[in-house]
Amino acid sequence: MNPEVEAARLARVALSWLVEPGSRALWLRVAEHGPARVLDGLLATGRDHLLRRAVGARLDTTDPRAAAAATLARTRRLGARVVIPEDDEWPGQLDQLVTICRDGRDPIDRDAAPPLCLWVRGPGRLDEVLRRSVAVVGARAATGYGAHAARQVGYELADRGWTVVSGGAYGVDAHAHRGALAAGGLTVVVLACGVDRAYPTSHANLFERVSEDGLLVSEWPPGAEPFRHRFLIRNRVIAAATSGTVVVEAGARSGALQTLRRAGELGRCRMVMPGPITSAMSVGCHEQLRDPEVRLVTGAPHILEEVGKLSHDLAPVVRGPVHPRDGLEPAERRLLEALLIRKPLSSEAAAVRAGVPAGEAMRILPSLVVRGFARRSGHGFVIVREPSADEAGRAPGAAPAGAPA
Amino acid sequence: MNPEVEAARLARVALSWLVEPGSRALWLRVAEHGPARVLDGLLATGRDHLLRRAVGARLDTTDPRAAAAATLARTRRLGARVVIPEDDEWPGQLDQLVTICRDGRDPIDRDAAPPLCLWVRGPGRLDEVLRRSVAVVGARAATGYGAHAARQVGYELADRGWTVVSGGAYGVDAHAHRGALAAGGLTVVVLACGVDRAYPTSHANLFERVSEDGLLVSEWPPGAEPFRHRFLIRNRVIAAATSGTVVVEAGARSGALQTLRRAGELGRCRMVMPGPITSAMSVGCHEQLRDPEVRLVTGAPHILEEVGKLSHDLAPVVRGPVHPRDGLEPAERRLLEALLIRKPLSSEAAAVRAGVPAGEAMRILPSLVVRGFARRSGHGFVIVREPSADEAGRAPGAAPAGAPA
Repeated sequence: MNPEVEAARLARVALSWLVEPGSRALWLRVAEHGPARVLDGLLATGRDHLLRRAVGARLDTTDPRAAAAATLARTRRLGARVVIPEDDEWPGQLDQLVTICRDGRDPIDRDAAPPLCLWVRGPGRLDEVLRRSVAVVGARAATGYGAHAARQVGYELADRGWTVVSGGAYGVDAHAHRGALAAGGLTVVVLACGVDRAYPTSHANLFERVSEDGLLVSEWPPGAEPFRHRFLIRNRVIAAATSGTVVVEAGARSGALQTLRRAGELGRCRMVMPGPITSAMSVGCHEQLRDPEVRLVTGAPHILEEVGKLSHDLAPVVRGPVHPRDGLEPAERRLLEALLIRKPLSSEAAAVRAGVPAGEAMRILPSLVVRGFARRSGHGFVIVREPSADEAGRAPGAAPAGAPA
Repeated sequence: MNPEVEAARLARVALSWLVEPGSRALWLRVAEHGPARVLDGLLATGRDHLLRRAVGARLDTTDPRAAAAATLARTRRLGARVVIPEDDEWPGQLDQLVTICRDGRDPIDRDAAPPLCLWVRGPGRLDEVLRRSVAVVGARAATGYGAHAARQVGYELADRGWTVVSGGAYGVDAHAHRGALAAGGLTVVVLACGVDRAYPTSHANLFERVSEDGLLVSEWPPGAEPFRHRFLIRNRVIAAATSGTVVVEAGARSGALQTLRRAGELGRCRMVMPGPITSAMSVGCHEQLRDPEVRLVTGAPHILEEVGKLSHDLAPVVRGPVHPRDGLEPAERRLLEALLIRKPLSSEAAAVRAGVPAGEAMRILPSLVVRGFARRSGHGFVIVREPSADEAGRAPGAAPAGAPA
């Protein structure tokens, strides 16, 4: 056990307890200074106004470090673990969520930052289980048709060696998980509550079976309740973890459509199964399919045709040994090319050189730091030489925390 | 009755009897010289080798003019009529079929020329009935779902004042017609046999009802049999007559998909209704919907959103008073602009000036003549001054036949 990594783990758990997942302000601060320093600053001075606002009332009631230590002990007792970006098994694709945070009134849009850490229950390595994975989501009130379709596509994907990721809800989610289990394949439930809770309670057996071969995953510590708003926050993880999202059935305002939108924002495949035009549970699907960028799929062959293209790119984007910069967005690439090797540039100066809006540079540069492409130097940023294949294979969050590979 | 128009009608009927519909060679000859001269040439000298090949054996057995006169008399006795391009009610959009004739082994591709004439039974003016029209086609072996969907979309379209055009076949076609009738709207059956024949026979009542308010239409004279190959030839008329084609249900190799392809070649809207992924009768639909240019529709609102855009353009392309040249294809426009007002250019010379392949110029220039944009002069072509609004409103075939508006 590396003491720095364990300090980071404790700090990330404490920060997760203090702030609801998705906070962009917190994530960027952690990316820049490392979790331990951010927690120290928060506890020591209380002067970190931006974060104080996010932290709210919890800071004043309990010692967050003690609470985090207790949480980690409880996690171990459950047979679960906390996976953090400093770990090798962290799925780097989740950090792409930083690219979709936006200013805006809707807190869901504003707070779509990557998770600080994940509670995981199950035998597999998180990154490996998710490497070839597809999200299959949809209506809780699935029809018999939707249940059949979800189970079949879950089976087909798992049978072909792909992991089926879903939210463990009634209806489409549960049938997708069950289909994957029936094929003897891997499936991942991304929960909106602690990994020790069965929600819905009638899925206790299902979750138990999933945790035997697959994984139960959550951003919330054990005991956390499935509050309504947490489902929408959770959805971004389902979208980001996978190569693409398949919606099986969805009413006009289904939450599954939000997962699909997130997938689109992240450049993942958006796929939708059609249904009878007479079914209210396919209305949302058909509206989505009127978007030419959303692909109609009727089963695993169609799905793999879509994600097969992307999955070659997906892993290398962040962790791949070949050309790590291939996965950068245009603005990210321009900013990176604008940086110098020795002379630090402020984000304003880099923005001017790159021809990128200053606000965007302020958002992007810290994320380039966390991914190891740039580093802080004095009051500015410098470029990091193209990392070697070995370095590029490291967990992307490792660089700023100074953890060895 | 204009004797020249009646001579053209007789000649077109005779030529229709001699040559199966769709012959590009015949249509271009007729466009260039007018139907009466083409028939004269064929009967007098027998030296028109190109056409002799198309005409085949029929020329030697009967007097085509006498046969045509008898056919016209029989048509009148049936309460039907023969509509020709020289008539005001000719739907000019059919002549756009000349743009999709292609060289190739498949005679269906080679022989997709516009009809020479149409047998019509029913009270409405053909052009007006088709002005706002949508084709609704699909599987003969429709499921209960497909039958319901076809009937509903037929009803909805007719209820909004749109004409429902289909092929009168079992399954989707018949249900689309019936839906339109139930709404008290207009519907058109485009037959692959004579308008006096009910095929399938169990649709005799349906066709009778259609002919009371709507129209029965055919390229084949009364008595003509519904040979198998005629259905595919007929499909191009369904696609060309309408602003768009909707496929309701289609197996993997359904003939309805050929109609959809034709619609795409003609720049019409391609629309498809989804169905359950478990249904063999939706397999063809779903494959089509994987093409981003094919739009998913679930009912009349979606359909009218698509064809609403196009229908403004459709009529003016050929007959509209405002800018008749707006509807020209790029190569047509370039060729037209390459022509001079007084000095005739051979098609080769025009092709060189326009930068268009010589073969294409040979195909396009006669069609510009028939649409009144150019005329023959000596051994070449000259441009016709931009027609006035009044002239542009004439039937497109009227110019070469010299018929007054």
